[in-house]
Amino acid sequence: LPSRLPKVGTTIFTVMSALAAECGAVNLGQGFPDFDCDPALLDRVNDAMREGLNQYPPMAGVPALRQAVAAKIAALYGRSYDPEREITVTAGATQAILTAVLACVHPGDEVIVLEPCYDSYAPNIELAGGRVVRVPLTPGSFRPDFERIAAAIGPRTRAIIVNTPHNPAAVVWTRAEMQRLAEILAPTDVLLIADEVYEHMVFDGAEHVSASAIPELAARAFVVSSFGKTFHVTGWKVGTVAAPAALTAEFRKVHQFNVFTVNTPMQHALARYLADPAPYLGLAAFYQRKRDLFRAGLAASRLKLLPCEGSYFQSVDYSAVSDLPEAEFCQWLTREIGVAAIPISAFYDGGFEQRFARLCFAKRDETLERALERLARL
Amino acid sequence: LPSRLPKVGTTIFTVMSALAAECGAVNLGQGFPDFDCDPALLDRVNDAMREGLNQYPPMAGVPALRQAVAAKIAALYGRSYDPEREITVTAGATQAILTAVLACVHPGDEVIVLEPCYDSYAPNIELAGGRVVRVPLTPGSFRPDFERIAAAIGPRTRAIIVNTPHNPAAVVWTRAEMQRLAEILAPTDVLLIADEVYEHMVFDGAEHVSASAIPELAARAFVVSSFGKTFHVTGWKVGTVAAPAALTAEFRKVHQFNVFTVNTPMQHALARYLADPAPYLGLAAFYQRKRDLFRAGLAASRLKLLPCEGSYFQSVDYSAVSDLPEAEFCQWLTREIGVAAIPISAFYDGGFEQRFARLCFAKRDETLERALERLARL
Ligand SMILES: CSCCC(=O)C(=O)O
Ligand SMILES: CSCCC(=O)C(=O)O
Repeated sequence: LPSRLPKVGTTIFTVMSALAAECGAVNLGQGFPDFDCDPALLDRVNDAMREGLNQYPPMAGVPALRQAVAAKIAALYGRSYDPEREITVTAGATQAILTAVLACVHPGDEVIVLEPCYDSYAPNIELAGGRVVRVPLTPGSFRPDFERIAAAIGPRTRAIIVNTPHNPAAVVWTRAEMQRLAEILAPTDVLLIADEVYEHMVFDGAEHVSASAIPELAARAFVVSSFGKTFHVTGWKVGTVAAPAALTAEFRKVHQFNVFTVNTPMQHALARYLADPAPYLGLAAFYQRKRDLFRAGLAASRLKLLPCEGSYFQSVDYSAVSDLPEAEFCQWLTREIGVAAIPISAFYDGGFEQRFARLCFAKRDETLERALERLARL
Repeated sequence: LPSRLPKVGTTIFTVMSALAAECGAVNLGQGFPDFDCDPALLDRVNDAMREGLNQYPPMAGVPALRQAVAAKIAALYGRSYDPEREITVTAGATQAILTAVLACVHPGDEVIVLEPCYDSYAPNIELAGGRVVRVPLTPGSFRPDFERIAAAIGPRTRAIIVNTPHNPAAVVWTRAEMQRLAEILAPTDVLLIADEVYEHMVFDGAEHVSASAIPELAARAFVVSSFGKTFHVTGWKVGTVAAPAALTAEFRKVHQFNVFTVNTPMQHALARYLADPAPYLGLAAFYQRKRDLFRAGLAASRLKLLPCEGSYFQSVDYSAVSDLPEAEFCQWLTREIGVAAIPISAFYDGGFEQRFARLCFAKRDETLERALERLARL
């Protein structure tokens, strides 16, 4: 069987989690919390199951959940989406992005991705028959380079994928940057896939500027969110996509023939949980405390801290410690030091080397402290 | 935005369920039970959640669940699959089929589907850039027409999708038929996508002959199962694919960039539930009783029964009752008689007309009786 994705192996997150488990390392690789969600959320899943809410939900998602998402977007980002025709519940953000790509990318279309980027984007585009156009974020700062973005747009450009807060670089696009993007896209038909799964994790008073908050962007955007990231239940695989009705119509044509629908009791539980808006509040402060604790500890090591404005990832420059390329360093760190990390090179086509490693701080304080003790040995 | 699926509207199952809800009709349209699963299964989900099993599971699925599936296939169908490299847990059967198609179909490849068939198959193939080759099942009997299947295979044929027990025609392929398929495929490289989601619902002593039971087929097959159908939890969206290691490797490359993983607490719950093999036993008898009750009731109406060897669908010929085309008849039946059904024409490209409607009997006895009372008025 000739491969549809000949360059693709097993995703780095799976590889490093498996290695961490094998070595008994502290797993700061794959991005997921090692603490549990609010037990009230579990109660609501149990309630929904006992009420018999275990069969297919509506294809686009449970109405109350779509309404809660629309209400949140209106409250936080000031755009009103019609829950009936503009919000769709997905089996997580990864499925949302593949589905958006399959819904809009025709064979031969170009899609711009900003490197470094999440490892699913390029294969998603290739599966749709599209061509991946890679534009680097500014080396060093990882901020968008608008000249290069503008230069990459051509007659075959169908879409651009933007991720803020950014994984792995932890940069949060400013309002000015989002507006600059809007200016560049305004004269074009280029669509935007906005991966905003870390929207609630922004630090030092930084603001998450959603694509839904910028009318010129919102009118052309699939805005992707993740309940897994937000509510510490990455294994539930529930996310959402907000997009104008015409885009949502195309999205749902594909969605219905991909997963068809998303887990019913989890959807009802989230809808009921969100009837109280409190869950969103405090998330930034919760993670900022962890970030600060982790950064303070790392400052005492020989690893150099990169900036962290948002997301739950802290990257480090390990060049003072080791000459190994990133993938080898992360393997060594996992095996020998007992801390699993993700090589930033995995977010680049062909593996650009900077001697950077990504560490996830969505962990219990004691987990972070255990990792810090080990990293102090470097 | 030019559509990737210009011919596609909202899937008929969603349309008819929405109409049924709007009209307060008895919903015998979309295929899902209106009774609940074993409460022991719900207890196990609750246990798993309380144990903190709410984060990403392994990409290919929870190992214990893959082992349970391999054990089941070995016990029932006599083939041993390696759970590590040959079984993958999916977000339901629909996602499994799209993922298999994306993993093996290259642009320009042909994929054979046997009409009538599930409405996701053709769009799945189109999204992969493939060409749909439609071969009719034998008119009247809906049995496979092997001459036409053999004639449809050409140098560009990548795969064939086979569904047994069949939705909507309720035909169960015999061992001789599966073997005939094996003979036809033997000299070719054509892959098989075997949609076996109704595997446990076969009647009158008929045997489900899985593609995994025929070595020549198993060696080239993605065999798709559904826990949602089997355990009355269609809203949980958990299925599996069994395929030889080389096929599974390609499948997982796509799977990891589609949904990445599948709901963690549901996977653990199913794994624990299946530690006891009893749940599979008795399913055929359970549904056969419902089928017999429903058929006996329908025999008193002016609807003519089509055969039902398997699945949980009973189709009827309504030509003695109405001259309306199928889609209009099903709308009318829903609105005026208060029973929602699915037009068989929706399973054909362009809507072939036979004056047939599909009714789902995976319902509580009182629901079936209520529907029968209404259908008696025809
Ligand atoms: C879906 S895989 C892992 C989670 C993640 O987003 C990451 O680690 O970058
Ligand atoms: C996944 S949609 C509906 C269920 C089904 O398989 C059917 O009704 O045919």
